[in-house]
Amino acid sequence: MVAYVNNQFIKEALATIGIGDLSIQRGYGVFDYFRTSNYVPLFLDEHLERFFSSAKALRLHPLHSKKELKEIIDEMMRQNHIPDSGFRLILTGGYSPDNYEPASPNFMLIQQPVALPTTEKFHQGIKIILHEYMRDVPGAKSINYLMSIYLLDKMRQQHADDILYFNNNLVLEFPRSNVFMVTKENIVATPSANILYGVTRKRVLELANDEYGVEERNITVDELKNAAEIFLTSTTRRILPVVTIDGQQVGDGRAGTITKNLHKKFVEMEENLLRKEAILKDMRL
Amino acid sequence: MVAYVNNQFIKEALATIGIGDLSIQRGYGVFDYFRTSNYVPLFLDEHLERFFSSAKALRLHPLHSKKELKEIIDEMMRQNHIPDSGFRLILTGGYSPDNYEPASPNFMLIQQPVALPTTEKFHQGIKIILHEYMRDVPGAKSINYLMSIYLLDKMRQQHADDILYFNNNLVLEFPRSNVFMVTKENIVATPSANILYGVTRKRVLELANDEYGVEERNITVDELKNAAEIFLTSTTRRILPVVTIDGQQVGDGRAGTITKNLHKKFVEMEENLLRKEAILKDMRL
Repeated sequence: MVAYVNNQFIKEALATIGIGDLSIQRGYGVFDYFRTSNYVPLFLDEHLERFFSSAKALRLHPLHSKKELKEIIDEMMRQNHIPDSGFRLILTGGYSPDNYEPASPNFMLIQQPVALPTTEKFHQGIKIILHEYMRDVPGAKSINYLMSIYLLDKMRQQHADDILYFNNNLVLEFPRSNVFMVTKENIVATPSANILYGVTRKRVLELANDEYGVEERNITVDELKNAAEIFLTSTTRRILPVVTIDGQQVGDGRAGTITKNLHKKFVEMEENLLRKEAILKDMRL
Repeated sequence: MVAYVNNQFIKEALATIGIGDLSIQRGYGVFDYFRTSNYVPLFLDEHLERFFSSAKALRLHPLHSKKELKEIIDEMMRQNHIPDSGFRLILTGGYSPDNYEPASPNFMLIQQPVALPTTEKFHQGIKIILHEYMRDVPGAKSINYLMSIYLLDKMRQQHADDILYFNNNLVLEFPRSNVFMVTKENIVATPSANILYGVTRKRVLELANDEYGVEERNITVDELKNAAEIFLTSTTRRILPVVTIDGQQVGDGRAGTITKNLHKKFVEMEENLLRKEAILKDMRL
């Protein structure tokens, strides 16, 4: 397996950076993560767009253009041969002379196998707990996961699968996923502020908009607890139903009708996208 | 210059860790930092104690005992020959199989030259601004400085030297220093909760207690703004007077009498400590 560090491919087991890097010294960096399915990167433009926007928010200057990144990603797929994978792009604060001020970044690209949740897992749903917290610079996908990793113990003690952050009584997001609810009036709603704007979130909003009322807005904790359905969206999990929240059952405690429908539509959209890519590839050959 | 990574000394320029480390992937790690003066580590036991306590808070298991760390530090001083230096110990989340759950840590030790603020800088004092924020897991010295580095721009725009965090109207700490105030009744007070408990802070509390009333307690932003004197304490800056806060003058806009006295006592205490060490060294020879 190869990785890519700054300007070259290197065996992943040998890929290193100097210990002076600002990610190691100060936890300072941004990243993004996208999936490939059958060698096709999914929603790559959106992920690269967000990678650049996160970098800008944290005043880091990417080493490569989007076009160059796409070429590096293509070459890595050819070398690693993992049809269904996750790609992680990382841009750190680099070797800061004073261990504080961001310098010229280090860039890393890693490819790893990835498995989507099984159908069984989907129908089983997940149990979540609430925790009052807002991510720092929430609109940027930074590498800062101190709080969520710190909370793993609390999560396990409460037999939960994930933790949902809220702040000032407003629902925000999971550490690595966005949250949606379906109201008793079949409105699909999701928080609008102080969150990371997920690529899957955006696509689900589009799909939901075709069939239901859709609202991006403030959602209170109480509203969420009284929702008919709750689900999360993320690149690695697509759509997963939430069946309990702080031990309290959501809806009838199973994947809701609208959640199931959106999940079906999302999978179909992905399949259509892959079919289109296959046709394009044939045309290019 | 040599560094130390995991279990060996290595030229600092060649010291690396794998890009899979949880500090790079998720900003997860702890550290501590102490000074040496004329080859004598200052308050080393307290710093090692805190390093272990930070590691415990973040469920990281140090690779070395305190005794082993002291030996490694001694050996590094012999190799690097920097009489007045800063030592940085870092313990990260290691190579996590799932990029999330802390694993066996990577340990790094780095020595760097350090310069204390000049007498001129001391008398000039610093300008600070307030910002609402509380560090994650504040009692642990984590590597997470995302917010304070993000705020460097705001700081510069407002011509400030440092940023003081407050939360729910209570004063907390600077990103890398503790805050003290002297009331108009000559009470020396410092926040007691949701902060990192600085080693310099502790010594200053002891010194202040010999001559003044001392209080560790909640301090509101308003109280602070009306203080007779304000100063910060840190390992690299010892004691520095604050002369303006959000553009408003503190006291008469110069280093206060009690601040100057505590600074003098602190320097004397350090000198006494160094003299004692020199005598002990002679006795050991």
